[in-house]
Amino acid sequence: MANQNPPAEKATLYLEDLRIAQRFVSGAYQIDEEQIRAFAEQFDPQPFHLDAAAAKATFFGELVASGWHTAAITMRLLVESGLPIAGGIIGAGGEIRWPKPVPPGAVLRVETEILEMRPSRSRPDRGLVTIRSETRDQFGEVVQVLVAKLVVPRRRQPESPTDHSPNG
Amino acid sequence: MANQNPPAEKATLYLEDLRIAQRFVSGAYQIDEEQIRAFAEQFDPQPFHLDAAAAKATFFGELVASGWHTAAITMRLLVESGLPIAGGIIGAGGEIRWPKPVPPGAVLRVETEILEMRPSRSRPDRGLVTIRSETRDQFGEVVQVLVAKLVVPRRRQPESPTDHSPNG
Repeated sequence: MANQNPPAEKATLYLEDLRIAQRFVSGAYQIDEEQIRAFAEQFDPQPFHLDAAAAKATFFGELVASGWHTAAITMRLLVESGLPIAGGIIGAGGEIRWPKPVPPGAVLRVETEILEMRPSRSRPDRGLVTIRSETRDQFGEVVQVLVAKLVVPRRRQPESPTDHSPNG
Repeated sequence: MANQNPPAEKATLYLEDLRIAQRFVSGAYQIDEEQIRAFAEQFDPQPFHLDAAAAKATFFGELVASGWHTAAITMRLLVESGLPIAGGIIGAGGEIRWPKPVPPGAVLRVETEILEMRPSRSRPDRGLVTIRSETRDQFGEVVQVLVAKLVVPRRRQPESPTDHSPNG
């Protein structure tokens, strides 16, 4: 499945290169039952993530991926193709929700929009960018919404107050 | 490292069994470099999660776990020992932040407090519970704060309006 953004080696967007409402679309990732079970055995060992038969008697009624698995796949899609930021994707935190469960066979893509951005008050070499990333399945339905604050480097250091420039 | 809560087979707390400000403490989980790299290769392939030498030149200055890895370990601790809710731990979403990076060797525990709870308006068999889970390292410092909304089953169905009880 084709990647709709520059590959990882071109992940060189700085704070100055971003703009409000700018959008990015990741490549695709298909999840299968084996992946769902493997993640759950390690990190979320509950019947609805481990066993299709046992899942029928649970809240979900079928085997579904852990929400944290969906979050981890979303991160992979962002890192590999979804958000080519210089220095990497460094999150300080955010809000996450899972409006729809992810069953085996789902094909996920991540659509990201820049919501807010500002230079750091204390660190002139970076800024804070708020993104909204919607993870959608093959039907276009949203399975995860993540609104996250990222640390993004600035391309140049601002001039220092003691700089001897004509306008300093 | 001893588990301070009932084991998973006693995960039978219903909405009626919870109270505001109730606290739970999980067992412990030690993270090592191999785990950090394995998670990162699968879900967060960035230099500061993959390679100790390459990490020195990055924002973090050392190898650290992906925040989603910390979130996944937190979930495992909640499921195995940290929050014995009947029917499992089913999250609708929440807020997450990572105030301190997690390096190899960190020993994590999760302390959870019940913040809010209410019966569902549309579904009499369940309620919504807001928890705050702090993941702390071996120094007691908070590496993750998760405030999450959980779906929690009620122990009994309320009487129906057409019930022929004396007070009906």
